[in-house]
Amino acid sequence: MTAPAQSPKVAALAELAARLPGLRLLTAPADLEHYGRDWTRRWTPAPLAIALPATVEEAQAVLRWANEHGVAVVPSGGRTGLSGGAVAAQGELVLSLERMNRVLGFDPIDRTLTVQAGIALQAVHDAARSHGLIYPVDFAARGSCSIGGNIATNAGGIRVIRYGNTREWIAGLKVIAGNGELLELNRGLIKNSSGYDLRHLTIGSEGTLGIVVEATLRLAEPPPPSQVMLLALPDMAALMQVFALFRARLKLQAFEFFTDIALRHVLAHGAQRALDGEHPFYVVTEFDAADEAAQDAALAAFEHGVNEGWIADGAIAQSEAQAAALWRLREGITESLAPHKPYKNDISLRIGALPAFLDEIQALLGDAYPHFEVVWFGHIGDGNLHINVLKPEGLADAEFIAQCEQVTKLLAAALQRHGGSISAEHGIGLVKKPYLESTRSAAEIALMRGVKQVFDPNGILNPGKLF
Amino acid sequence: MTAPAQSPKVAALAELAARLPGLRLLTAPADLEHYGRDWTRRWTPAPLAIALPATVEEAQAVLRWANEHGVAVVPSGGRTGLSGGAVAAQGELVLSLERMNRVLGFDPIDRTLTVQAGIALQAVHDAARSHGLIYPVDFAARGSCSIGGNIATNAGGIRVIRYGNTREWIAGLKVIAGNGELLELNRGLIKNSSGYDLRHLTIGSEGTLGIVVEATLRLAEPPPPSQVMLLALPDMAALMQVFALFRARLKLQAFEFFTDIALRHVLAHGAQRALDGEHPFYVVTEFDAADEAAQDAALAAFEHGVNEGWIADGAIAQSEAQAAALWRLREGITESLAPHKPYKNDISLRIGALPAFLDEIQALLGDAYPHFEVVWFGHIGDGNLHINVLKPEGLADAEFIAQCEQVTKLLAAALQRHGGSISAEHGIGLVKKPYLESTRSAAEIALMRGVKQVFDPNGILNPGKLF
Repeated sequence: MTAPAQSPKVAALAELAARLPGLRLLTAPADLEHYGRDWTRRWTPAPLAIALPATVEEAQAVLRWANEHGVAVVPSGGRTGLSGGAVAAQGELVLSLERMNRVLGFDPIDRTLTVQAGIALQAVHDAARSHGLIYPVDFAARGSCSIGGNIATNAGGIRVIRYGNTREWIAGLKVIAGNGELLELNRGLIKNSSGYDLRHLTIGSEGTLGIVVEATLRLAEPPPPSQVMLLALPDMAALMQVFALFRARLKLQAFEFFTDIALRHVLAHGAQRALDGEHPFYVVTEFDAADEAAQDAALAAFEHGVNEGWIADGAIAQSEAQAAALWRLREGITESLAPHKPYKNDISLRIGALPAFLDEIQALLGDAYPHFEVVWFGHIGDGNLHINVLKPEGLADAEFIAQCEQVTKLLAAALQRHGGSISAEHGIGLVKKPYLESTRSAAEIALMRGVKQVFDPNGILNPGKLF
Repeated sequence: MTAPAQSPKVAALAELAARLPGLRLLTAPADLEHYGRDWTRRWTPAPLAIALPATVEEAQAVLRWANEHGVAVVPSGGRTGLSGGAVAAQGELVLSLERMNRVLGFDPIDRTLTVQAGIALQAVHDAARSHGLIYPVDFAARGSCSIGGNIATNAGGIRVIRYGNTREWIAGLKVIAGNGELLELNRGLIKNSSGYDLRHLTIGSEGTLGIVVEATLRLAEPPPPSQVMLLALPDMAALMQVFALFRARLKLQAFEFFTDIALRHVLAHGAQRALDGEHPFYVVTEFDAADEAAQDAALAAFEHGVNEGWIADGAIAQSEAQAAALWRLREGITESLAPHKPYKNDISLRIGALPAFLDEIQALLGDAYPHFEVVWFGHIGDGNLHINVLKPEGLADAEFIAQCEQVTKLLAAALQRHGGSISAEHGIGLVKKPYLESTRSAAEIALMRGVKQVFDPNGILNPGKLF
């Protein structure tokens, strides 16, 4: 009689459990499904197991084990990603950092906060506020996403126009490279010209070079009191004009746009109407309004926009509750679209390249998707547009995605002509992998592959993502 | 009869001249000396020749030629570097970008300036100002240094406390990688999460991965009107207190310190005395002073510092000429020290780590250099200290450097203990190469060497620099 055959991966997993008896490992089907996918719903989760290390040492031991046994590892934060970067559908080990979610320290002199990578963005905001400072990267998924995931995609969000992307706020990173080595990158220094900045190389690498386990975040002074305004606009050209007008006259903290279709969905999802009538475009903008002069300047800018015919209507929040209600019109969009299984495009261009690109692409989408509902929103001041195509009821998922992919090819070609990017802030992951060549040249991709080989010689980290 | 023997390098050079008949090539001894060294004076220039391409295509052709013939190339900007990064002392071809010094374009919507890499920093400032904006990286070598060199060392300077380092202002780079491929990195985008950010990898790589040929620089709005103050302080502890006080109460644009010895040298070099008496430490600080309230806040902060005993004396500039005179006390230091052949240390720490480090290092330097004059100055708000040791008259250069290197070993060990960097803003080059291990771990250096191999497989770019 022989023992039942055991796959090499299952044997390796048993060896891991024996080697690290304190490591939390999950293999129940519900856990595999929960941890094996992100907010994309295109792939069927099929991880080997879920490892939940409690310490850097445990995480490093898991990565060393994975190198020895050739087991692929998918690093996992809040799994709110939209490009499939945290999907485990090929028998990978998911390495979730959710137990490593503590604030490790605050430095009042350097104004930095050191955190474990599994901490939620909202908890980072709260910790910063408790010290009278802010961590200025912000977006709607703040309650669920983790800082490690933010770093892996160089997350942007709604305050980039004022504060830049995640990259600008990372003073130090503790990273376990794919080869199992623990790296302490930049260690909180402001100035450090001592060779290649591997911190910046890691930021945005989508878990393919190393696993971020700790981060030292720069904090900022809170901005002055602000006001929130909702604007209704007649067309995309007016949007560019109003952006130029408001940027010149006000100190913007955010300048977000969305279309009438986006508004319809978010209202249907429970948000509160703030303006009468129907308009093609809307803007939620927030700007410094510390004193009466600043508030007068905002009203003057608004009136100038009305007189020019660029602004059809508007509302200004008179309370924090009203400000939150206006913000919900923008921030609620992604959630309101989720039931429609949107096919998402997250593209960017130079701001100056937007008008010509938009002319071209609106015609393209109108021709290609006459039967689809297309929702536009995004960050005009960052050159970042989100184009969501909603799946018509009754159309099979696979057929819908296949049709969308055809158009994405055209979109990618247009982006290439206009010098844009196929991923502004979501990352490439699995979803945009077929289109990476539209944004990065063959020579760049060859260098990226070479760098990947240096950091992760056995190719165990998030294989199949990015390229 | 045989032809006279010709070295392979000389033959290769003849082949380059034949291949690129329009390429300007210099081989006169005076040119070799001029282009073969930077502001360090420790190495005897001995380049093979100087190539001065006029176009990206010419520069790329030179790099392809260098790969074919295995000729080492030293990229060359303004050669104001202080770490030997632009020294050519081993028969290298110097590739000078000084003919590629034009502004290529200004984008008013994206607020970017695209320039050739050989342009001087001062010319970038002038171009930005001509459009009502600023390029906020600034330091004393602005008239001579090139933007390409600034990018190669991620140059910092006197406005980092407000605006960050060069890295923060680079929206796009055109780079010829060591393998001869032309890369167009990030192309001016604000958001771009499409794989590894090779732009940031190139910034600070000291010409060892690629040659920057063009850069797209972000510009900023000019800051509000400012005031410049000179402060005299009794000790280093007071310096930390005054920094904390001023940072909390004022919006700092710069906060620079220097010692009495530095002041003595700069006054001897022609600067104008602004305060009576002798004090151990001085600060030149510049801060927003748009209105009377801001000016009152500055005076109140000053008075608070006086009352606490942290400030012994002070002067506030009442005109632009006075402001320039106060700034000259700080900016003239490097030039005033040059005749004394200073041995330079350019170190950084977290700001919060400075006091303990300083206690340790001042004792160390006092013990080690009792017979040397040591000049301290730098950027306290960036955790960046410049420690210059002046060569006593009569001591031979080599002996002086040998003695200084002994102490640098102790300094490097102290930096390692306190989590600092052996190079804040000058780069590693040749000067700090023996001490790289104090700042970067063996695992990091191994990854850096791997990355170098990917970008420059034939090892032709600035060999022997950095590592």
